[in-house]
Amino acid sequence: MKIELNRINKDFHFQGTGATKIAVNIDGSSEIGGKDAGARPMELVLMGLGSCSAIDIVQILKKQKQTLLDFKIKIEAERENKIPAVFKTIHVNFHFTGELDKNKVEKAIELSFNKYCSVTAMLNKTAKINYSFSIN
Amino acid sequence: MKIELNRINKDFHFQGTGATKIAVNIDGSSEIGGKDAGARPMELVLMGLGSCSAIDIVQILKKQKQTLLDFKIKIEAERENKIPAVFKTIHVNFHFTGELDKNKVEKAIELSFNKYCSVTAMLNKTAKINYSFSIN
Repeated sequence: MKIELNRINKDFHFQGTGATKIAVNIDGSSEIGGKDAGARPMELVLMGLGSCSAIDIVQILKKQKQTLLDFKIKIEAERENKIPAVFKTIHVNFHFTGELDKNKVEKAIELSFNKYCSVTAMLNKTAKINYSFSIN
Repeated sequence: MKIELNRINKDFHFQGTGATKIAVNIDGSSEIGGKDAGARPMELVLMGLGSCSAIDIVQILKKQKQTLLDFKIKIEAERENKIPAVFKTIHVNFHFTGELDKNKVEKAIELSFNKYCSVTAMLNKTAKINYSFSIN
């Protein structure tokens, strides 16, 4: 896997690209009182975790013929107060909309968190990761 | 820190937003033979690592009155062949352009990797992370 980052301005705005070449805007200017023109690096890591798990869950629910009409994920994380400020807790809240069996949904989340998701498997070395979910 | 992900299509295309609300497109459709409309989750994690470190380095070089005219970062990572397919090696290649003292550049990279960068400090639990750099 290969990615590339290019600096866009004289401060901390970078654009990242991977296999698709669709740009991801990244910035850290708010750390020094400026305005960010993109996501913060640690936000990207959380997006990586949430989407890794979300893709697993969509795949599992498709195999189980569950009808998923809408899917939102909210993540809240707390960082250490010392340097490096790694994540110490990560809470993932999944909101499902559709014709869904509660037990199948919970099984899909568990399979992702405990078996498939590579990002969870890396971040749980330093952070306590937990989840909650709701079905509409 | 809070982020949110919303599913955009019936497959694996999500949009992520953090504090700025600038959308990050994320997709995993290529895993099942489709076409990705965004970065892959594990690519985002690498972008988080590269940009976290790049922002540290820009800050350190600014403090040292070094003139950095252009800055590119290329990352190549290898994943485990088993599930979960965590990163086992990550190589970060920094390309600097400017009036730069080689020793100060190397010191800045070392400070980021070994002291400041939160993403490096999380991913080095599972991956060997190393770097190389060039100055034009």
